[in-house]
Amino acid sequence: MKAVMIGAGNVATNLVRALSATGIEVVQVYSHALAHARELADTVNAGATDDLSALEMGADIYIISVKDDAIVNVVSSIPDNGALWVHTSGSIPMTVFEGRRQRYGVFYPMQSFSKQIATDFTEVPFFIEAVNDGVALEIEALAQRLSQRVFHATSEQRRRLHIAAVFACNFANHLWTLADDVLRDAELPFDVMLPLISTTVDKLKRLSPAESQTGPAMRRDHRVMQSHMAMLDKDKALIYKTLSDNIMKRHEQD
Amino acid sequence: MKAVMIGAGNVATNLVRALSATGIEVVQVYSHALAHARELADTVNAGATDDLSALEMGADIYIISVKDDAIVNVVSSIPDNGALWVHTSGSIPMTVFEGRRQRYGVFYPMQSFSKQIATDFTEVPFFIEAVNDGVALEIEALAQRLSQRVFHATSEQRRRLHIAAVFACNFANHLWTLADDVLRDAELPFDVMLPLISTTVDKLKRLSPAESQTGPAMRRDHRVMQSHMAMLDKDKALIYKTLSDNIMKRHEQD
Repeated sequence: MKAVMIGAGNVATNLVRALSATGIEVVQVYSHALAHARELADTVNAGATDDLSALEMGADIYIISVKDDAIVNVVSSIPDNGALWVHTSGSIPMTVFEGRRQRYGVFYPMQSFSKQIATDFTEVPFFIEAVNDGVALEIEALAQRLSQRVFHATSEQRRRLHIAAVFACNFANHLWTLADDVLRDAELPFDVMLPLISTTVDKLKRLSPAESQTGPAMRRDHRVMQSHMAMLDKDKALIYKTLSDNIMKRHEQD
Repeated sequence: MKAVMIGAGNVATNLVRALSATGIEVVQVYSHALAHARELADTVNAGATDDLSALEMGADIYIISVKDDAIVNVVSSIPDNGALWVHTSGSIPMTVFEGRRQRYGVFYPMQSFSKQIATDFTEVPFFIEAVNDGVALEIEALAQRLSQRVFHATSEQRRRLHIAAVFACNFANHLWTLADDVLRDAELPFDVMLPLISTTVDKLKRLSPAESQTGPAMRRDHRVMQSHMAMLDKDKALIYKTLSDNIMKRHEQD
């Protein structure tokens, strides 16, 4: 099976590496920056191009792994060649291919990638979507070469997945920034918090997050909550109150 | 060195196990529930009691590891015997001993403990405080038997540490509950999020949380933020907005 990778960023780099390792022949890498295309292409002896009109048209599968805003451009500036076309975005609906391809879908690995660290895809959840059942089987087989965790998800489900990731990762990380601020005020290094954070995350393997909730809001300890808010600046106190109120409300409903 | 453990909960259980392993002789365990005292005492061939007036008074160190509210009671109902007295609470100031003991301090291991899983204390940060420098050296030596990470912290610093832990662990865990709710609405299991959460936490070993912040608020993508909030219920939308606003504000100051 021959593949063309359109994109040479973090996701593309890890996918090219991993797909090649499973025996798929990556024949060409495109990037708008030729040096990036070449750098990635060289790792698997593929061709490199920065010209969409020079794309190899005889491959079996085309993987579009460029910035969200650029996907529609790529799709509309290349004619359909009857091959399988997928994009790897969590946010862009499958309809971006509608009327422009016959065999298409979504091939979204939900993980944070970097070029420097080779991702082990085995546990990475893939969310796939396809224009029809036949194409779904093809995309599923492709994902299963890499991962044990392949899910069918509609574009709507992928949007909710993205919202969940914003809460679970982006917002959680921001709370660690606020904890870092509080510790810095107390002249303590942030890394004292890492063992406790690790334990909190480890619990998620055994219990749901609702089941493992602890803390002053969970035990409705208003005295401690008040004393904490009195020690915080206005912005942090507002976040403390908003989240504590929501913990009390959410666990009332249990 | 002989120790008496006052308490038989999660912290006490792990401390008794770990201190015994370093050669400290735990001679007695107290709990208001005799069965709990006996269960823990039996693991190290110590005596057990549920009667504070029957405490062995000839030990070198007394470790009070009971519920926060019960500490003052324990301290005031036992006369000073000149031994070293410490409590293990993150929240109770050292002054709980003032006027009631001569040699006292705080011996606070910051971790979440359970009886079922034996904690490896090596990386657990200990925060210690003492009435004077001589006692500080004794408590420090005790902590260093267990951990490589021993910090001197005032009661004020410990309060801020607790606030930081509420943000970093209790509130982060609640965001995982909200992510779980969003995923459940989308008929997806929460554990699809675990690889991404692990990666987010792993980053903290290399970068500060502020440096590793990503997401729609960080890149000021108002279109995505609006579309996410439109898909959320009122409470979740409020949390989304409060945290996104704070991310934008916090990173403006960078």
